[in-house]
Amino acid sequence: MHTPWDHRYAQRTQRMGSSVIRELLKFTEQPDIISFAGGLPGQDVFPVKEFKQACERVLDTCGATALQYGATEGYLPLREMIVRHSARYGIEVTAENVMITSGSQQALDFLGKVFINPGDRILVESPTYLGALQAWNAYGAEYVAVPSDEHGMVTEALEEALRTGPKFIYVLPNFQNPTGVTLARERRNQLIDLADRYGVPIVEDDPYGQLRYEGEHLPSVVYLDGLFRQNSDPCYRGNVIYLSTFSKTLAPGLRLAWVIAPPEVIRKLVQAKQGADLHTSTFNQIVAYEVAKGGFLDQHVQVIRKTYVERRDVMLGSMDAFFPPGVDWTKPEGGLFLWGILPEYMDATELLKEAVKEKVAFVPGASFHACGGGHNTMRLNFSNAKPDMIREGISRLGKVLQASVK
Amino acid sequence: MHTPWDHRYAQRTQRMGSSVIRELLKFTEQPDIISFAGGLPGQDVFPVKEFKQACERVLDTCGATALQYGATEGYLPLREMIVRHSARYGIEVTAENVMITSGSQQALDFLGKVFINPGDRILVESPTYLGALQAWNAYGAEYVAVPSDEHGMVTEALEEALRTGPKFIYVLPNFQNPTGVTLARERRNQLIDLADRYGVPIVEDDPYGQLRYEGEHLPSVVYLDGLFRQNSDPCYRGNVIYLSTFSKTLAPGLRLAWVIAPPEVIRKLVQAKQGADLHTSTFNQIVAYEVAKGGFLDQHVQVIRKTYVERRDVMLGSMDAFFPPGVDWTKPEGGLFLWGILPEYMDATELLKEAVKEKVAFVPGASFHACGGGHNTMRLNFSNAKPDMIREGISRLGKVLQASVK
Repeated sequence: MHTPWDHRYAQRTQRMGSSVIRELLKFTEQPDIISFAGGLPGQDVFPVKEFKQACERVLDTCGATALQYGATEGYLPLREMIVRHSARYGIEVTAENVMITSGSQQALDFLGKVFINPGDRILVESPTYLGALQAWNAYGAEYVAVPSDEHGMVTEALEEALRTGPKFIYVLPNFQNPTGVTLARERRNQLIDLADRYGVPIVEDDPYGQLRYEGEHLPSVVYLDGLFRQNSDPCYRGNVIYLSTFSKTLAPGLRLAWVIAPPEVIRKLVQAKQGADLHTSTFNQIVAYEVAKGGFLDQHVQVIRKTYVERRDVMLGSMDAFFPPGVDWTKPEGGLFLWGILPEYMDATELLKEAVKEKVAFVPGASFHACGGGHNTMRLNFSNAKPDMIREGISRLGKVLQASVK
Repeated sequence: MHTPWDHRYAQRTQRMGSSVIRELLKFTEQPDIISFAGGLPGQDVFPVKEFKQACERVLDTCGATALQYGATEGYLPLREMIVRHSARYGIEVTAENVMITSGSQQALDFLGKVFINPGDRILVESPTYLGALQAWNAYGAEYVAVPSDEHGMVTEALEEALRTGPKFIYVLPNFQNPTGVTLARERRNQLIDLADRYGVPIVEDDPYGQLRYEGEHLPSVVYLDGLFRQNSDPCYRGNVIYLSTFSKTLAPGLRLAWVIAPPEVIRKLVQAKQGADLHTSTFNQIVAYEVAKGGFLDQHVQVIRKTYVERRDVMLGSMDAFFPPGVDWTKPEGGLFLWGILPEYMDATELLKEAVKEKVAFVPGASFHACGGGHNTMRLNFSNAKPDMIREGISRLGKVLQASVK
């Protein structure tokens, strides 16, 4: 049956496509599959009890406000809490620099809406976060990819890429999605220097920064950029837009994240948000503030780290035990993911078909490559499954790999 | 201080502009202003107690699921509840026809993203909902406006407008925002006939349909279109996309609304949502389901109707008492708004400046007119303020009008 909608889609709709990750998530909902495919936090670490207490307090003391429409830029006490949190990492900003979004995915969408004209090039790492590509494809983005290694984006290759005139640089410096690698300290400075020299701004996406399991905290790109500018203005007005989220430290089901940007950019993002969804749920913002305030978030991050580092170690140990020679992988210092590199002659998408028969799943790496490549790579999530399941899943995957290795 | 962001905005960003309504909402937060400017539900009718109980139940029984990532199309039990609710009004659909959005504003944004190419014309009522214009301006929409009268869109003028080749027709048939008028029964049929003849689909926006205070329920456009098609398929595959929301019946702070559309369109909207915010808050969807299920929503809508009809009557009565001859207004059978029509020589924006001095506010009508006009019109909200405040505010506004009338 035809409707007049069928032939009325906008041109951009053809570029949108369905997310491989989302389709896989659906598929891996089958209960007998051990899935390393999603990017799900372990739901055994969600602070359910604290949420229950916070909901009760919020509805008792300011229920009507929490259920009413709110300001587009977000709940002021929450934005002020983010200002204080940022200051602990040397990021000197004011509430004028902060907007709340419905997850970091929404921040990526708004950056596309506000900055990307069809045909604009975005400079990305190869591989990079698939959700960013998906958000920006809708606005007609094209990409220039800079290779990455075990120390993150290879800044030696950055200058050539900057000469192609990208709109901005997109980088995930900490425990990157999908590879789990961290941008080295000296490369962070090189990135800022080169970006400044070419007049190209930077979007720093940092969903996992709090989840470091070992090694030393590295200063964020937005912090280093602020230092570089030596500004007496309490408001940040530099080259870096910084994104972070409560999805990995509190709970993703709330859809709560934030953007730090120069106030002029925040104003444009607020206009985008007015047209897109008016504001993020007032109730969730107030409840998250109630849960997080008074130091609970810091304690809770300790619990998450302890849980995830064990899972990472079980995964790494199982890979050592079960994966055949010729398969390599990253050893992330934090975050949720690690990255497998198969021999060149193997194709991870073909391998997934075999893996699914053995009831184990991962994401083939090709889709994280904006400009092609990566057929022999895979992303594995270690935060969601419990240690026993990780061991069992990696053992199954090892069997599939053993059978495929020449 | 300049940053490289300054000259990097996309072309569409220039078309976005800030919403007059949102700016006014900020302004009217001053506590001594009686504001009829917002579109806020009365927060004394929010079911705070029921929310508190529902949060407790949800976090006790399925807390981890409620805090985890969820499906992009929405929480299935909530979508199935919407299917049952729709069936009571003869709208025969399946869960495949339903997607949850973060407020109806997000549905409007996605319709723009999925359907509107720059330069596409959208057929709208004059005046129409400002939020739709704001969402679609970002995608480069242009407009063809059909006048409306006390029975809604003047369908006699529709055929000429359809000949300009609009992408779709946007209509708010019940207690329209901003005018409060309702599209007459026979005009609904004419709209469907003409849309079908010209092969132009319809977006029916129905946020207020449940809030009828008098007169008979009129069948929705999506229902009439379904009848017209006489289809045995349980899935709706007609010409109408239907939008509604929990914002006016439960609480706007949750940001929960829904779209009913042919399944092929839902799939495209789901792709748009994947790139835009992954999904609407799992927690809010499950809590709203818990609050609404088991008949509570029906009882609660009775309470809201009783509260708002009193406020509407107080406003209408006060206007009779305080407004000078030459000023006219609509008498809505439901919803949140009524519409004032001033003498031609008056300008509502100028009047607002005087009104604010007297500590009363409204929205000048011009911004609701996609193709110009309406300088002498104003929108007044009657749902938010309590009766005494309505009487006082209208008395203040009457004083301003008396001073301006020739």
